Amino acid sequence: MFQTFDSTNDPSKGRDRVARLRQWFASEGLDGFVVPRADEHQGEYVPARAERLKWLTGFSGSAGVAVVLAESAAIFVDGRYTLQVRAQVDLDTFGIESLIENPPPAWLEKNLTANARLGFDPWLHTIAEAKALKAVAEKAGAVLVPVERNAVDAIWNDQPEAPKAAVEIHPIQFAGELAKDKLARLAATLSKQGASHAVLTDPSSIAWAFNIRGNDVPHTPLALGFAILAADGKHQLFMNEAKLGITERAYLTQLADISQPDALEDTLSTLAQNGATIALDPALAAEKLRLVIESSGGAVVLASDPARLPRATKNRAEIEGTRAAHRRDGAAVARLLCWLDRQEPGTVDEIAVVTKLEEVRKQAGEDTQMPLRDVSFDTISGAGPNGAIIHYHVSRATSRTLSGGELFLLDSGAQFQDGTTDITRTIAIGTPSEEMRERFTLVLKGMMGLSMLRFPAGIRGRDIDAVARIALWKHGLDYAHGTGHGVGSYLAVHEGPQRIAKTGTEKLLEGMIVSNEPGYYKEGEYGIRLENLILVTPAEKIADGAIAMHGFETLTLAPFDQRLLRTDLLTREELDWLNAYHARVLREIGPMVDGETLSWLEKATAPVV
Amino acid sequence: MFQTFDSTNDPSKGRDRVARLRQWFASEGLDGFVVPRADEHQGEYVPARAERLKWLTGFSGSAGVAVVLAESAAIFVDGRYTLQVRAQVDLDTFGIESLIENPPPAWLEKNLTANARLGFDPWLHTIAEAKALKAVAEKAGAVLVPVERNAVDAIWNDQPEAPKAAVEIHPIQFAGELAKDKLARLAATLSKQGASHAVLTDPSSIAWAFNIRGNDVPHTPLALGFAILAADGKHQLFMNEAKLGITERAYLTQLADISQPDALEDTLSTLAQNGATIALDPALAAEKLRLVIESSGGAVVLASDPARLPRATKNRAEIEGTRAAHRRDGAAVARLLCWLDRQEPGTVDEIAVVTKLEEVRKQAGEDTQMPLRDVSFDTISGAGPNGAIIHYHVSRATSRTLSGGELFLLDSGAQFQDGTTDITRTIAIGTPSEEMRERFTLVLKGMMGLSMLRFPAGIRGRDIDAVARIALWKHGLDYAHGTGHGVGSYLAVHEGPQRIAKTGTEKLLEGMIVSNEPGYYKEGEYGIRLENLILVTPAEKIADGAIAMHGFETLTLAPFDQRLLRTDLLTREELDWLNAYHARVLREIGPMVDGETLSWLEKATAPVV
Repeated sequence: MFQTFDSTNDPSKGRDRVARLRQWFASEGLDGFVVPRADEHQGEYVPARAERLKWLTGFSGSAGVAVVLAESAAIFVDGRYTLQVRAQVDLDTFGIESLIENPPPAWLEKNLTANARLGFDPWLHTIAEAKALKAVAEKAGAVLVPVERNAVDAIWNDQPEAPKAAVEIHPIQFAGELAKDKLARLAATLSKQGASHAVLTDPSSIAWAFNIRGNDVPHTPLALGFAILAADGKHQLFMNEAKLGITERAYLTQLADISQPDALEDTLSTLAQNGATIALDPALAAEKLRLVIESSGGAVVLASDPARLPRATKNRAEIEGTRAAHRRDGAAVARLLCWLDRQEPGTVDEIAVVTKLEEVRKQAGEDTQMPLRDVSFDTISGAGPNGAIIHYHVSRATSRTLSGGELFLLDSGAQFQDGTTDITRTIAIGTPSEEMRERFTLVLKGMMGLSMLRFPAGIRGRDIDAVARIALWKHGLDYAHGTGHGVGSYLAVHEGPQRIAKTGTEKLLEGMIVSNEPGYYKEGEYGIRLENLILVTPAEKIADGAIAMHGFETLTLAPFDQRLLRTDLLTREELDWLNAYHARVLREIGPMVDGETLSWLEKATAPVV
Repeated sequence: MFQTFDSTNDPSKGRDRVARLRQWFASEGLDGFVVPRADEHQGEYVPARAERLKWLTGFSGSAGVAVVLAESAAIFVDGRYTLQVRAQVDLDTFGIESLIENPPPAWLEKNLTANARLGFDPWLHTIAEAKALKAVAEKAGAVLVPVERNAVDAIWNDQPEAPKAAVEIHPIQFAGELAKDKLARLAATLSKQGASHAVLTDPSSIAWAFNIRGNDVPHTPLALGFAILAADGKHQLFMNEAKLGITERAYLTQLADISQPDALEDTLSTLAQNGATIALDPALAAEKLRLVIESSGGAVVLASDPARLPRATKNRAEIEGTRAAHRRDGAAVARLLCWLDRQEPGTVDEIAVVTKLEEVRKQAGEDTQMPLRDVSFDTISGAGPNGAIIHYHVSRATSRTLSGGELFLLDSGAQFQDGTTDITRTIAIGTPSEEMRERFTLVLKGMMGLSMLRFPAGIRGRDIDAVARIALWKHGLDYAHGTGHGVGSYLAVHEGPQRIAKTGTEKLLEGMIVSNEPGYYKEGEYGIRLENLILVTPAEKIADGAIAMHGFETLTLAPFDQRLLRTDLLTREELDWLNAYHARVLREIGPMVDGETLSWLEKATAPVV
């Protein structure tokens, strides 16, 4: 299994650990310390070594930050973790604050005293975050102090080592472009930014640029490390050499000089002393890098990670790969749905579905000689009211039986070497209510609206977010999340910069993959979400269409539960789209499944009038 | 007539006037001067006295700026004036530049020499604009110099006087809230902004806050002037006393101290010396005001004009007024359309329609004892290819006959004391082509999509701009303008801050009036635009609708040309909306028109299946 169902609810250690932290930072002449849930690379998944927030507080969520002052301490989480944090942390030690409504800068403004010295680890905060913290500290008459050694590391005796998983070369048939060509492209952009060098701090960018993958964190095939790109082509890679076999080493040596990660600081210092102008992404790069460069007399250019857009716009091989991955994944999901349909209501629970889903995904990988490498994130398997928890994570304590008259929401994904998938379906267990069918149909209308859309080339994700919501809005409903996130190519399932959301300021460019996942959540009762991945494509030329248009190709292939459909709410155009989609699912997935699943699939994809 | 059709194409004077300008600014120790098309209030319409750009260059458009340096001069206009500017200015004297792609700051960066002294009139540039100019000058090693006397005024011998049109009190039955209550509301917001005073520089804000109207500029009933709001309630109004009759003077004296406009500077200086903190809107207030306050030791707070949002969210009386104005205006438009329908193709021209339209609007005003005060902007009356020019202004030189087989676009509005209107209809002259009918129907689908929309309270104009475009997008088409602008209540027809456009960052609040005007333009052939004004309302409560929703009430009442309809492209929901709208038009407008128009209206609003 690539995921576990254990939950840790042990708030008992927080009090003592915070006391030791206070002792330590007082001995360093500090009056407080900030502990974010972050590593040096600002990834969504971090290695065990970087789980400092969890170790200190007990809180295991994927986003949050704690601030410990001499007399008070607070942990900041967003709405999805409000309940969880109360079960996991010692409420006598930590105040609970909203990461959104009262984030650390606002809280610090009230709680920092004049002349206080607030410590932070500049490796764990981006340049932008450090700037915000510094502004707040100055406003309070306090001082923000970057520390040389992380305060948690100083007291965490059995802190795990940094991961050293083996690096593998990502084959050219999946990558579609040689690493040397990618690096040359990136080097060419540096001069446009007025930089002689750029530091890549995002392991996704390094994986993409060097055509390598790793296994240092869960669910995303990253090899943690840094790279310095040079306009003159003398690139450097900072990666633990223990991760490299002979072949990988030989391969990488042709692309860059390879050093241990701890050589990064000295290398940057030397470059800076020699007059380098070094680009850093203020939203990704650690403040530490800025401090090192500027303290050595170098110039920092704040600019977006140059690999982000090239990585986001997939090439032909990546697109072919993702199509194959989606057929394979669709076959697995069809098997799962067929299996689920045969289970009596009340006989399986959420964990059983997750386990079965991994099993059929593995089977699909073996059937096609493309083994399942990982799931792309912890499966969201929510029956009844659990489905209404948008980022629900099933544990043994919460796993609920799938019962008749309830809805079941299943959001999951796979990592195959040829592509990353992410699919959500909502299934009726037993007989659904009329309200459930109406709401399901409204969500589906939104999803189809976006699927069928054409839009002028060059507009932004935020310009079309409403399209997936109009049908729900007309019924006084909405969903409290964005409509779509970018997806990597055998990389992170949440990949920037593009998204379809009110905050989606990036242009939607040909070759970008985004999710299309409207939903509806009735708290305490049920949740509905439908998600396909879609690819930005040039729309076919229309006679007299005056401007360049884009459209979407749907990548995900699996049936929607037609028992939940209110066909009377659909337009002819929507019915045609749905029937064509289901016909395509049967055509592409049918040949890949067993006889029993095929019979089921034929019924599940039958056209509706 | 409230509008004229004369065009001025006399580029001959520019050369001499620029020479005199250069002579003058050289004698003042300057190396250049900036001449914007703006007055001290940054209004869309300016008084004759402020038409400095037109006097200097010959260019009569409503937006533009000239920069004159010792050796070169350029005039900057946007896309709609590219042709016009070439006909109106001396091309040997002025280079023509794009206001959008190569605006003055970019041009100055290339053309300003080190140590040059660039003069500008700080009364005619906002704080934000002056900041941008200053940054450019500094980058070039030059100096931006605010002048005491405008360089154009210095050489313009017969410059008109400032206008002195009579001020009238805007009656409470239309204003809906007493001026003293409005002023108290505004004063209360000052302390929240941390200001003791705020300068109102926008005459629309003064008109709204004091419940007065004037006639100083065309098409918008403004009385030009300034006001200083005081947190302690000691407000001051700066307005030429010649505009005030005994009654108006007595009325205003109860609300504020009244002074001549030229007392503003001294008053601000005194306040500043006494430690005032004065709020200025950086996007509206003249740089001069900032200079006066800061040079006297006062503090400036940059904050939005406090009257903008209260003015934009109409109260019950304003809403009742605008509904009445729209019925009256709808009756006038119905008369016009009936009249137009009786004219043989090839017998009337664009000017004839504009003239007739003013006539029927005057008649409708007389019929209802609510005289037409003005048109709300110069009517856009475009036949055939002229309809494809988005901001077309008909002149005797361009007026085109309405011919069979062509489309005719008519965009116009009225100023009545109870409300401001703005309506666009596109009419078939003779038999339209199939393509015209298809495109018309797509535009109408977009307009109806927005009309029928519900949306969560608190979202922004940019979040719903796409709704009016989806149908066009699907056919590879779009329009190169926003979908809607705010509209005042017997005030400016283009009123901020809200808009429905990709740039619409303001929330859509209950009581806001916006236009809903998608279009399609085929250059050299025809233009289609359909425009209704719509009012943001709370949507009716829906059972189980979990969140507060808003919707739109359509204010504009006039039939759409059903000869241009392709009903096969409409959904049932769209057909129902259209039939219900037309039934409402007949019900509300029918009783207000003559028998002939009524017969025509009955046919024009007949339901389609």
